[in-house]
Amino acid sequence: MTDLQARMLELGRRARAAAAALREAPADARTRALTLLAEGLQGAEADILSANARDVVAARAHGLSEALIDRLSLTPVRVGGMAQAVATIAGVPDPLGVETERWTPANGLDIARVRTPIGVLGVIYESRPNVTADAAALCIRSGNAAILRCGSDGLQSSLAIAAVVERALAQAGLPADAIQLVDTADREAVGLMLTGLDGAIDVIVPRGGKSLVARVQAEARTAVLSHLEGLNHTYLHQAADLEQARAIVLNAKMRRVSVCGATETLLVDRAGAERLLPPVAADLIAAGCELRGDAEACALVPAMTPATEVDWTTEYLAPILSVRIVNDLEAAVAHIARYGSGHTEAIVTADREAAERFAAGVDSAIVLINASTQFADGGEFGFGGEIGISTNRLHARGPVGAEQLTTYKYVVRGQGQTRP
Amino acid sequence: MTDLQARMLELGRRARAAAAALREAPADARTRALTLLAEGLQGAEADILSANARDVVAARAHGLSEALIDRLSLTPVRVGGMAQAVATIAGVPDPLGVETERWTPANGLDIARVRTPIGVLGVIYESRPNVTADAAALCIRSGNAAILRCGSDGLQSSLAIAAVVERALAQAGLPADAIQLVDTADREAVGLMLTGLDGAIDVIVPRGGKSLVARVQAEARTAVLSHLEGLNHTYLHQAADLEQARAIVLNAKMRRVSVCGATETLLVDRAGAERLLPPVAADLIAAGCELRGDAEACALVPAMTPATEVDWTTEYLAPILSVRIVNDLEAAVAHIARYGSGHTEAIVTADREAAERFAAGVDSAIVLINASTQFADGGEFGFGGEIGISTNRLHARGPVGAEQLTTYKYVVRGQGQTRP
Repeated sequence: MTDLQARMLELGRRARAAAAALREAPADARTRALTLLAEGLQGAEADILSANARDVVAARAHGLSEALIDRLSLTPVRVGGMAQAVATIAGVPDPLGVETERWTPANGLDIARVRTPIGVLGVIYESRPNVTADAAALCIRSGNAAILRCGSDGLQSSLAIAAVVERALAQAGLPADAIQLVDTADREAVGLMLTGLDGAIDVIVPRGGKSLVARVQAEARTAVLSHLEGLNHTYLHQAADLEQARAIVLNAKMRRVSVCGATETLLVDRAGAERLLPPVAADLIAAGCELRGDAEACALVPAMTPATEVDWTTEYLAPILSVRIVNDLEAAVAHIARYGSGHTEAIVTADREAAERFAAGVDSAIVLINASTQFADGGEFGFGGEIGISTNRLHARGPVGAEQLTTYKYVVRGQGQTRP
Repeated sequence: MTDLQARMLELGRRARAAAAALREAPADARTRALTLLAEGLQGAEADILSANARDVVAARAHGLSEALIDRLSLTPVRVGGMAQAVATIAGVPDPLGVETERWTPANGLDIARVRTPIGVLGVIYESRPNVTADAAALCIRSGNAAILRCGSDGLQSSLAIAAVVERALAQAGLPADAIQLVDTADREAVGLMLTGLDGAIDVIVPRGGKSLVARVQAEARTAVLSHLEGLNHTYLHQAADLEQARAIVLNAKMRRVSVCGATETLLVDRAGAERLLPPVAADLIAAGCELRGDAEACALVPAMTPATEVDWTTEYLAPILSVRIVNDLEAAVAHIARYGSGHTEAIVTADREAAERFAAGVDSAIVLINASTQFADGGEFGFGGEIGISTNRLHARGPVGAEQLTTYKYVVRGQGQTRP
């Protein structure tokens, strides 16, 4: 056994023991740990920024792109935002112990379904250091122990944040091992986590780009709670209100182009295209968006370039939008079924019946009526935060907050019943 | 591509198309298909029994054990039971389209969480032909298309049942491809299903013995909804009522020893052992159960043989029970945490506070108070039936009925909201 293997297995054993203690801890101890964590992050701002400065210097020396360095960099405002995010999670109703159903079947047993933690989560993520605080907070709220593996570029920043987490847990009387950060940049640690560390990890949660998620799905010997790409569509129905269409499409595409809730393809009813598409396109072009359309769309908006088949399957995460004219609502639903990733789709229409038909027909995690796809976010859903947006068909679908990081058990109260 | 590969991929494409149609089908069409299926099974009794007779002749020729031949064999009573099970599932409330939550966060969006089918299930099972009818019925109730792969010994029986399923679907106006049975005994078909058939299968559901489940978990490239063993405990607390203890332990162990809800280990408080264990043991011995105990238990019941470490980790599925004396409730919980499989545990006690402490402390899918572990069953839970008992930490835990074979989507109704 290598030294790293031994250390990782030890992390697993500690996490397992901490999970058992955490499962029994009362809600107010977990709330107190979160409040202390929010305060502690503010208090440790200088330490965190100085650790982050070391990460940034090293990242520049390694030639990281400016975009990645921006994701990695912390500022007083960003540390404040991190603390605020933790404080918000502290204020979310505690999900544990809640009876979600209770009934008595014919045998007279009193059956209750009660929310419980999953156990030990292995969270594997990339460069943003705030994920260390977010993931820790969501795990504390949901009573799960966690082993966190950050991107190597942000290791110093994450170690500084993890030190604050450890203090907050201890001060709240919770096991300090409940949240452990892997303290090495050695990539082999990821492979070891994917083995489950001898059964210590119940679920791996990858949070990052396509290649990370693909590696986790291919190699993990544990259950995986992952999200795939957000190849999202906004559909302008022929009965769309023009001003709503303009505002929603511009926001859905351009508010932030790099988030998984961004719209990547615009579908427009043929019957409404002449009225709707030119003004919507003009807004997008004015905001710096490149448009790639099918032949009919290009005819209506000369500034568009022709789209090819690959455009319908591309998650740009950039100021580019593909545009297609469709026959009708059914054709829009069919396009989404064929090319979409099952993440988030929106319809804009003043026709309520059409809206409901779209909502029933589209099989994606989130279907919005007359709202921007950029609302695909656990915070916007009122979950206090999220560890990602799941496109899985099992367990959680859509935003994954603290409640989605729980499982349940049945507590069955009898009076001596035996089964005939 | 081999001929089998091509045929399996074609099954996958048909299942995918059927799933899209089934998702849109109204509840009453699915109920009608189930009613027609229950009637059809009764009507096809002669066909099914004659196909089953061919399976049994072949199984004997292959030297199958009498126990397996009994599992495989159908009788008029068993066909009637199969039809009755389908009729029961027809009567369960339809899980689809149900809004399980609806709320409005600060952004003013109206968010509803709505149950939807998972999509296409691949169900892989062993010799009992009734699983073909059960699995088909649960999938129809939950709006999922399915590719069923039965054990090769029961192929003729299952083909006869599948023909009835196909007719019932068609008569109810549903796609006949919604439920397809793999019509070959070629074992390579299982391996192909585990690849997901080019994305056509969303989830594999193995139903069978340990080696099948282990193979599926190791090889599946899809999500897996599986159950592992049921290494279940019944714990006699010092405040247990003696008559309840006798009735519950005897039932929990001996009602049917081969089911996953059977108790495999009996834990007894030291403070109650002298009062409780001898009469409980006498009942078991009289019913033909072998007892293997620790030293203290053997001292109280001379007919016991000494248990070794391996007894605490063995799912006997046979008339054998291991018995251990424990210090107290905490020691019982610790034993279960160390040796249990997270399936089902029971406490017998007249002390309500102790019962609740046990229910909170034990981290298993089902925890029973003063009732037999053999109630671990979807039918007993009022689910109308089950495809198995899940010990997974994600998605469904405990009995998996029609509702547990669903996922959900969010339907979000706005009035033109864009995200700030």
